[in-house]
Parts: sequence; C-alpha cells; structure tokens
Amino acid sequence: MYRTHTCGELRMTDVDKTVKLSGWVQTTRDFGAMTFLDLRDRYGITQLVFSMEENAELCEQARKLGREYVIEIEGKVRERSNKNLNRDTGEIEIVAQSMKVLNASKVPPFTIEDETDGGDDLRMKYRYLDLRRSPVQNNLIFRSKLALEVRKFLSNQNFIEVETPFLIKSTPEGARDFVVPSRMNPGQFYALPQSPQTFKQILMVAGFDRYFQIVKCFRDEDLRADRQPEFTQIDCEMAFVTREDILNTFEALTRHLFLHTLGLELGDFPRMSYDDALRLYGSDKPDLRFGMPFADLTDLTKGRGFVVFDSAETVIGINAKGQADYTRKQVDELTEWVKRPQIGAKGLIYVRYNADGTLKSSVDKFFTEDQLRDWAQHLEAEPGDLMLIMAGEEEKTRKQLGELRLEMGRRLGLMKPGDFKPLWVLDFPLLEWDEDTERFYAMHHPFTSPKPDDVVKMASDDRNVLKGLRADAYDLVLNGVEIGGGSIRIYDRDLQMKNFSLLGFSTEEAEAQFGFLLGAFEFGAPPHGGIAFGFDRLCSVMNGQNSIRDFIAFPKNNQGRDMMIDAPSGIADVQLKELSLATTVKVTKGTEEI
Amino acid sequence: MYRTHTCGELRMTDVDKTVKLSGWVQTTRDFGAMTFLDLRDRYGITQLVFSMEENAELCEQARKLGREYVIEIEGKVRERSNKNLNRDTGEIEIVAQSMKVLNASKVPPFTIEDETDGGDDLRMKYRYLDLRRSPVQNNLIFRSKLALEVRKFLSNQNFIEVETPFLIKSTPEGARDFVVPSRMNPGQFYALPQSPQTFKQILMVAGFDRYFQIVKCFRDEDLRADRQPEFTQIDCEMAFVTREDILNTFEALTRHLFLHTLGLELGDFPRMSYDDALRLYGSDKPDLRFGMPFADLTDLTKGRGFVVFDSAETVIGINAKGQADYTRKQVDELTEWVKRPQIGAKGLIYVRYNADGTLKSSVDKFFTEDQLRDWAQHLEAEPGDLMLIMAGEEEKTRKQLGELRLEMGRRLGLMKPGDFKPLWVLDFPLLEWDEDTERFYAMHHPFTSPKPDDVVKMASDDRNVLKGLRADAYDLVLNGVEIGGGSIRIYDRDLQMKNFSLLGFSTEEAEAQFGFLLGAFEFGAPPHGGIAFGFDRLCSVMNGQNSIRDFIAFPKNNQGRDMMIDAPSGIADVQLKELSLATTVKVTKGTEEI
Repeated sequence: MYRTHTCGELRMTDVDKTVKLSGWVQTTRDFGAMTFLDLRDRYGITQLVFSMEENAELCEQARKLGREYVIEIEGKVRERSNKNLNRDTGEIEIVAQSMKVLNASKVPPFTIEDETDGGDDLRMKYRYLDLRRSPVQNNLIFRSKLALEVRKFLSNQNFIEVETPFLIKSTPEGARDFVVPSRMNPGQFYALPQSPQTFKQILMVAGFDRYFQIVKCFRDEDLRADRQPEFTQIDCEMAFVTREDILNTFEALTRHLFLHTLGLELGDFPRMSYDDALRLYGSDKPDLRFGMPFADLTDLTKGRGFVVFDSAETVIGINAKGQADYTRKQVDELTEWVKRPQIGAKGLIYVRYNADGTLKSSVDKFFTEDQLRDWAQHLEAEPGDLMLIMAGEEEKTRKQLGELRLEMGRRLGLMKPGDFKPLWVLDFPLLEWDEDTERFYAMHHPFTSPKPDDVVKMASDDRNVLKGLRADAYDLVLNGVEIGGGSIRIYDRDLQMKNFSLLGFSTEEAEAQFGFLLGAFEFGAPPHGGIAFGFDRLCSVMNGQNSIRDFIAFPKNNQGRDMMIDAPSGIADVQLKELSLATTVKVTKGTEEI
Repeated sequence: MYRTHTCGELRMTDVDKTVKLSGWVQTTRDFGAMTFLDLRDRYGITQLVFSMEENAELCEQARKLGREYVIEIEGKVRERSNKNLNRDTGEIEIVAQSMKVLNASKVPPFTIEDETDGGDDLRMKYRYLDLRRSPVQNNLIFRSKLALEVRKFLSNQNFIEVETPFLIKSTPEGARDFVVPSRMNPGQFYALPQSPQTFKQILMVAGFDRYFQIVKCFRDEDLRADRQPEFTQIDCEMAFVTREDILNTFEALTRHLFLHTLGLELGDFPRMSYDDALRLYGSDKPDLRFGMPFADLTDLTKGRGFVVFDSAETVIGINAKGQADYTRKQVDELTEWVKRPQIGAKGLIYVRYNADGTLKSSVDKFFTEDQLRDWAQHLEAEPGDLMLIMAGEEEKTRKQLGELRLEMGRRLGLMKPGDFKPLWVLDFPLLEWDEDTERFYAMHHPFTSPKPDDVVKMASDDRNVLKGLRADAYDLVLNGVEIGGGSIRIYDRDLQMKNFSLLGFSTEEAEAQFGFLLGAFEFGAPPHGGIAFGFDRLCSVMNGQNSIRDFIAFPKNNQGRDMMIDAPSGIADVQLKELSLATTVKVTKGTEEI
C-alpha cells in the first residue's frame, strides 16, 4: 500500500495518527535543524517535518530531494504551531518517521505552480508537467464534473446516450472532412464525423425519441487561435417536439449545469429574433451582461450637409451611460480603436450630453443642439451620458458598432466575471447567398426546417424572397458566446429534396450523399429537432475564460500538431502500400524535429 | 404540441381524460363496425379505437393507414372491456376523436416485431427500421444505462473522466492502425488510437491520480464474425496503487453494475493464476458456471502398449458427472465433434463408470478395470459418471479438452442464463515467443510491469528464463468471456527501455515511438496501473448474448462497410490533392453499389 491518506485529507481530528502519504515534492525549506517539505497530490498539499536532531539520516535524505521527486512517507500527524488557514490541511503537519523515494525527477523546464514561467510551446511539449498545475487540473476536473451533470440531467429526462460511428462517409457539404483510407476497400475512404447530425436524425426515425451524446467531432479547417481539429459536442435530438419543447428542455439543462457545478441560479432566458439581435446589438450573439443597445438615427441625420451621414446607408449610435466626462483624448483613442484593420471603421462621431444639459459633439458644425437633443431622446441619453455614433453601409456598420459596444463594455467593467446572461436567438435566415460562388449555402445546415409559414415561399424564383426565408433555428448565447445551436429538422422527403435543390444539389448528388436519410424519410419519419452544445466552449465560458485549449487535456497547436507526442508524422512505406496509397510529396519518415 | 402522453404511460387512473398521443401504427384490425389500432413509440403500445357508427369519416381514415405510418391522435381514455394484462397500458384504450397523419410510410422490407423475418444484410441496410424493434432498442437502452452507472460509480470514487485525443501518432507495435492524412502537414499522418494507453499513463505522471474514460478505439484488423473496426472501452488508470487496490476497485465496479442494471448481487470473485487456468480448464478465460476441471492422467496411462497415450506429451481428462448413460452413439457424436477442423483433435477416449460400479472404456484392450478405477479417483468420478480423455501435445490437447469441456457444459445445460461467475486470472507471462518472426512480443503490451521478483531475471540471455517471466497483469473473466484486462505498469525509464529491448526495439526506435513517455518517466512518474473493459462485450455478456453487433447502434459488416450510409466510398480528386495523396488503384468515384 502506497498511502493511507491523500495529501488533501488530514485534519485536526487525525492528530496522533500514524499515516502514510505518497506524492510529489513541491518545495523543501530548511529552517535551522528542521526541514519542511510540502508534499503535493491532486487532492492538496500536506506539510512534512524532518529534524536533524531527531533523525539526522532521514533529514539529510529529505534535504537532498529535488522538486517533483515522488516519495512515500510514513509519520505521525501533529498540530502545527504556525497554522496556514489558506490550506485545508494547514492546521496539521506530519513528523516523518521513514521515507522511500519512489521516483526521481530531473529539474522541470518550468515551475509547477499556479503562475508558471513556461511559454506555450514548452508547456505543450511537456504537457504532463503543465497538467500538474492546479489551475489546469481544476479545469479538467470541472470538465469531468460538467459532463457527468449533463448525463445525469438528460438521463433523468429519458434521453438515451447512443454512440454513433466515427468511421462514416465523406460529404463535400460543410467544412472539410478528415478522411481515413480503408485497407479492406482499396481506394475508398471513411470520413471522421463533423457532427453526428444525420445519425441522430436516423435515430429519431428509428423511434429513439430522445437521444444525446457527448462526442468528439472533427473538422479539417485552417486553425485559428482558438479552434481545434477535434472538439467535443453535447449532441441532442428529440422527436415529436416543437421549438418550444426544445428551448424549455435545454434551458432546464443549462440551469441544472450552473446550479450543480457553480452553485449559481441563472436568471431569465430572454428570446430575441436574429433580426433584432443584429438591429440592436450588431451581432447574432449579443452579450447581455449590459444594455447599450443601438438606436437608429438615419432619418434624423440626413440632409444637413454632413456628407458622412448623407452618403451613409445607416447611421446608428449607442449611449455610454454616465461617460460624459470622457476626455477628448479618450474619445480619440476610441476612434483609433475602431479604425484598426480588425474593425475597419472610417471614424466615430461623439455627442457629449453635459451634466448641465448642454450638448457638445464632433459634428456641431452641421447640427443644432436641438437636433442633438433629438438624437439623445432616441438613444435614451440624459445629462452625463456619452453618445457614440457610426455611419456607413448597414451590415458593416452594425458589426463595427457591435464591436465598439463590446469594447465599451470591457472598458467600463460591464462584463462582470461571475455574471451570466443567457439569451435565445431565434428565426435565423434559412439560406445565405455567397457572392463568390453565386449560390446559396445553408446558414445552419441543409437539414434545418424553414418556419412553417415560409415553406410555400421555397418555390419562389426570386432571390430576395429566398434570402428572406426564415429557419426554425435557434442559438443559445451566453455572455456573447454561442454555446449551443440547433433547429427543427425537415422530416419530409420532398421538402428535403427542395432544400437540397435550393443549395445547388442535383437529384443525383443528393441521393449519392444523403440517400440513406432521404430513404429513411419514406418509412415513417416523425417530426423532430435538436441542438448541439460546444462542450469545450461551454467549459471555458462557465469559468469566465476565453481559451478552450485550457479545458482540453491534450490540445493541438495552430499547425494541428500534438507537440508532446510529435504527431502527425511520416508512416512506413508498408503501411502506405497496404492502403493502396502514395504520397505526392517527399517527407522525412519517422519523427520530425519540433 | 404533439402529445400529452407517451404510448406507454396511460393507466386506469387516466380514464375519462382527453389526451393526445403520437407514434407509429403497429397494426390495425377491423372488427365489425370497429377498428382497433395499436400505436407504438419507444415507451410502449396503446390501443386506439375507431367506430364506423360514431365517426365514419375518421374510422375510414384509420382503415386506410399502413403499418409504420406516423400519426397524431386526440381522444378520450376509457377502460377496456377485454384487458391485455401483458401490456402496461393494457387496461385502457383511447376512443379516437381526431387524427392527423404526420408522415406516411412505404411498406417496410421486413416486419418490425420482436422476431423479424429480415436477413442480416437487409436489416443493416435499413438499420433505422431494425432499430425500431424492441429487442434492439432495449439493448441500446441497456448500454446507455450501463455507461451512466459506470460513470456514477467511478466519479463517486474520485475518478476523473478525461478525453484523450483521437488524432495521435502511428506506431508499428500492436495491431494495425487506421491512419488519417494531415493536410496541414503534407505527407504526414495521424493515427486513430487503438487505446488511450500512453495518454492515460501520461495522466498518471501528470498527477491525475484516478482517470477513466468510456472511449472509442480503432483497429484495422481483418474482421472476424464478432469484431468491429471501432469499439468502445471503459479505460481506467490509478496512481499509487498495487494490484490488490485495482482488483478491489474493479470488483466493486462490476458488483455495482450488476446490482444497478440487472438487480443482481454477484457472488465471489475468485482468483486463479494463468498457469492454473490452463492446467485446469485449458483456457485463460475459464467459464466457472460449472466445474469439470481437468485431471492429469499422463503418469497413470504410460507404458501399457496403447500407442496414443505412450506417444503423447500429456493425457488429460474431464468428468461429466452423472452421464454414464451416454449412449455409444452420443459418444461417437462427441468424438466427431472434437475431430472437426475447428477443434482438430485426433480422437476421444471414454470411460463409463456404470451405476453398478463396473467400468467400461474404449481402451479396455490396454487397461484393467483397476487401472480405470485409478483414473476415476484422479477425476473424482463415481458410479454414474462419464470420463472423457484426450492425449497429445500439451498445449494443443489442453485447448481441445477445454473446448470439449465447454461443449459438455452447453449440452448438459450447465451454462445457465442469468448465472454469472466472475474470475480474476492473474500472473500472465510477460513475453510470448513467436516462432515465425523469431522474436518476443508483449503478451499484454510493452508497458506492463514484470512481477517485482522477476525484474532481475529480465537481464537473462536464456530464452527459457525470459519465457518464464511473469507480468503483473490480470484479466477479469465472466462466464468464459474476457471482459477486462490490465496491469501494473512500468514507471521507470531504464526498466521500460529494457523491456523495449527484449521486444526487439532499438534505442532509436523506442525513442522515436515512445520518447514522450520515456521522457515523462524522468520527471517524477508515480507507480501506477490500470485496466480496460471491453464495453460492447460487457453489454452482451451481461445480457447473456454472444454478438456485440446487437449492442452497437450502427455496426459495420465483415468487410468493414456501413451498409446503411454506404461507407467507405471514393472521395473527390480535389480532396486527395489537398492531402498530397494519390491512390494506387482505380476506383469508382462516388458511391458503390452494395
């Protein structure tokens, strides 16, 4: 037996017990004839004491231990004279009686403490050392707990977790697939699933009624800062449901998760249409931890000779409450901020509503104070407020002002950690027109149902009518992050074929790629719908963090490489030959230097 | 809203309620002016009643419905005059008031009932219809429940579920990998994991202490009847543990699973060495639902002029209790059975211990009745028993007699459904010598620790000493099926390198393939060990079934094909080009006819 207790377990009630602990040497400190050693494991840190006077040999041995050595220690629990109340075990210490070194350690390449000095690359290469740090370990413990709570809740609601296959079929629709060559079917490939979408629909046709799965998905896309080639979804589907049933079920799930992991009761789950979200916040995932909605000033600002407004498709503003004392310098800084290439605005107009009721703006030349007061009324601004106004092409300007709104939220401390504001965004467009390829793409995916009233309009030839089609789709947004999205699905073969045809599929292509689903719709498919949550993202948002990487045990870097195991790598010629494959580039076989 | 209740929910207490149900038409029967319709969903079947007298139009409509149509019905619950007590809802029926056809159905290609007339291929192609059948649906519901219980138990024991990556590195050791070409790293490949073995060990080095995961694994092996290219493991690892800790923890898990899914209390978990298992049952996974152990008769049978025994390395027998009345014909049948190519025995000797105390055998020419009585003593046979004896090369003969023992168990009804007999098999050999390739292979895997006493013997040059090395490995066997296996791991870099070298790895090869693990062992690796359960297999054994396929929602056939979605398939040239790959065979692009 390596231990009677963990390093986080002993308390005052254990005083005088003889115990055995195992763990890692966090630190040693010599203090006169005494040596104190902090022994660490996942559960906590316990202080060990050695004494040159009582057992010189043992104490000498302890003084030679390096950081991260693994030791087993036997000793007696005693009350500490100098208690550390920040630590659960801080009232006691162990007087060491014997010790065994279970394993030595080289000096770690970075410090294994909450704040480390290791850079990203080093920490990914030595991931097993980075994972020893409490913040990273706690992230993964949270993730495990969250997954368990998802399963408990959904199982209680009669959902069945069904594993869908990983070796499926490649389809050109959507993102790029990772493919897997088949040795037994030479020249043919499996694909790794981008999501279990069609399988979960098949399960509804099969009568499973309520399905879920916490499942890995794969997308071979160019990696941005916080995107991983493999990621995890909470994937759900229900039969015989309306949108209302789904929103209620997954609002309840979200409430359960917050309550049972963070101990938080969430407030309302308001609902907003996609159109309103864009109109009021310039985003389909508005952060509702603060207000600051847009007001449309287009009509108020036209024809006064200010060419920026006169030539603009739209003029919109926000009201930064109580910020009238923003200095000219601060406003200039904001103007520079919106002009950065990431935002790309041409400029920023301000109107300061002074405490004394006067108004001062950067466009005083063109507008009277009464006119500015009109704007203020639209923006619900009062004395003491600062109005910020942007103008230009509608879609772009909304997006830019949306970014400015978020920046103001950040600067004014309105995005409070620990504050969680959920929002359902509803009624997304069914189709998105792509100018480059001159075709429609599905905004959600090709299996999303149009809203019932819009079904007849699908027969239209008018591109603008088609652009106006609304889908029975919904996103769950939390603090400005989309944590889940889904839709009511098409379950009628003819309607599905119509949708494929709007997306540019020929009948043959639709049959070749999705024939099994179209076929299934002919044998009694029930109405159904579902949702998928980004599990990595949900973990990070619930912890007020931005990076999903810190919630993944073994993430890949931006080149899709696992720096620790050094993958991907070349494979043996015999493997390629068995797969009836040849590479068209020269590559070093074996591993590659990182 | 599509329903107020499910089809399994209504009882006598609901009589007179107006309800709405949705589901599939199982059957319709006309009975005079009445029509009875069985409406089915996952939760049960409810009888609907239509009447030509009360509502001719609705009744006509119901009479036109085909099997598997999806309908929504509103009506009033009433007590049935002719109750069906085999059905939870059998005391009531719904008098239909209105009906909506939600979807039509073509005539299914096979009957959707507990016993179906569909062949394997048809059922796999129309998997969504096969999945509607109760037995298949119940299997998957059981699987979901079992997974949840695994997670609840292990989480309560402080295990953390950690997701390990699917895109890892190919290693030539073990079974053949499925590989995934990397677009971003041209000419390089990921591999899909055969198990998360090295990652779970890394997690132990990282201090996670107790890890588990229910996880898909992949092996590109030629498929036998009941092997799938993707399968699921319950994968577990613990730090600072001895074998005893692990056996106790997973005995408790197994007990929990039986109790909380089947309501069964398991009996003892006896332990047996690998050597004893082979010596007594001719198998490293003996079925202990019945006894019938081997007795060694080699010494008793030599030198009597019977050449079969005299030339045999071993002579062993079993005692079929109370089977002395087996007829000559039945014994001949058994002899034919062991001579089949699958078993490959040369013959079978019998000794009948008659009820009157006389003995009769097929070798009376060579042995006296007293000698036969000696055999009987060794086999603990009494009057009324039948002894069955085989002779030949030791390893082969044990295996053949083991098969005969199982066959006798089947014929005598000793493998009772609902009877579960677990067994830990311990102390497996560390290495297996392969005559063809003239090298050692790891019997478990290269990370398995030798038993402490055998570590020094690893330095030996003597092949027989090396063959005799014992590993700290264990299998959990249930009713003759290996449901789990694991080992205490090596955690010392030098010992790991020594083991690699016995397995024929050069230092460079070991570094190239497992450098990250060897490196991790230098930074304070704790002692650790673990186990993995075959989850698909566990599901089937717990349900007394042989095929794992019936516990997998979307299994592949023996050619590794998914018959429903028609995968694998050809992929587009542009996809191959992006991956810097070319196929070396001609293949039809698009889908292939099944």
